[in-house]
Amino acid sequence: MKSETIEVQTGHEARIIDLTAQVSGFCAGEGDGLVSVFVPHATAGVAILETGAGSDRDVLDAIDELLPRDPKRWHHEHGTPGHGRDHVLPAFISPSITVPVINGILQLGTWQSIVLVDTNIDNPFRTIRLSFIS
Amino acid sequence: MKSETIEVQTGHEARIIDLTAQVSGFCAGEGDGLVSVFVPHATAGVAILETGAGSDRDVLDAIDELLPRDPKRWHHEHGTPGHGRDHVLPAFISPSITVPVINGILQLGTWQSIVLVDTNIDNPFRTIRLSFIS
Amino acid sequence: MKSETIEVQTGHEARIIDLTAQVSGFCAGEGDGLVSVFVPHATAGVAILETGAGSDRDVLDAIDELLPRDPKRWHHEHGTPGHGRDHVLPAFISPSITVPVINGILQLGTWQSIVLVDTNIDNPFRTIRLSFIS
Repeated sequence: MKSETIEVQTGHEARIIDLTAQVSGFCAGEGDGLVSVFVPHATAGVAILETGAGSDRDVLDAIDELLPRDPKRWHHEHGTPGHGRDHVLPAFISPSITVPVINGILQLGTWQSIVLVDTNIDNPFRTIRLSFIS
Repeated sequence: MKSETIEVQTGHEARIIDLTAQVSGFCAGEGDGLVSVFVPHATAGVAILETGAGSDRDVLDAIDELLPRDPKRWHHEHGTPGHGRDHVLPAFISPSITVPVINGILQLGTWQSIVLVDTNIDNPFRTIRLSFIS
Repeated sequence: MKSETIEVQTGHEARIIDLTAQVSGFCAGEGDGLVSVFVPHATAGVAILETGAGSDRDVLDAIDELLPRDPKRWHHEHGTPGHGRDHVLPAFISPSITVPVINGILQLGTWQSIVLVDTNIDNPFRTIRLSFIS
């Protein structure tokens, strides 16, 4: 298995960050296999979405409605008010996803991008581990 | 890695389609490994559920309640009214899942089926990529 | 692939059970690869969360709010009242997750634990399949 970590700047607001170019570059030149995209943080997830046509915003809005930042809702009390919500997020948007790769090319559909979903506003940098297994 | 795509007819209504027989057939004769079931579409997901005792309908109802089709809710505006919702779905029901295989046999529990969850009513056919890695 | 099952006692209430020690022990002495944690039950999921600071309770509360136990909500009618909800859970919290392993060590973040999410109160024991592929 080939594995490495990359670092992504997420800043201090909830963000959806497109990782497709980095994952694609990581797989280039490899053969057939699965690529694992794994976020080693307890307040972020990885998803596969269409980006750029409003769905990024829609996903963040849906998270805010289904899992409101309201601090009174959550037992977890560290960090910025509402951070307890961020710790519930990965139960519903997992930090781990695998994508098939053929001849070094991600087998995503036309409208799919691999994204980091990060509602944590306390931590402006995130590490992501990419692993290719064949 | 062995990989191939299959095509599934989903029609023009929200559907949960059982893929277990196809995935099982794909793995037959292989040894021990993981099978990846991946949907290369931005408005569908893959899940593992009991089918046939009402839970298919329950899952579609839960999606409609948690992520309503109401077009006013979503920024994404292509397609049939409510299609914006379909683009949020894969954040919560991922298009990628892996299942362990032993001696060519899916290691599903008695009541588990691998299903396509497709709320998109615009696209009556769906491609699914099956990949086996050992 | 190396694969084995473990059994976990979950009792008769909704529980989040930390599996990290067992998964870590399973991977010890292996090289680089992916470990698959798979629950062969139709009413449970696997997640990666911080445990021990209230988020376990927060996740169970979020499930109860988003997918209420109210039996009138669900078509599925077997088991204890509210069991229909447990059959919807795995659509949103998948029974399958993979984690990268380097030199036999899980590549989890500092605050991440691998957990079983089991809201089923009818079944006090659960099987979990661990598989390592390199």
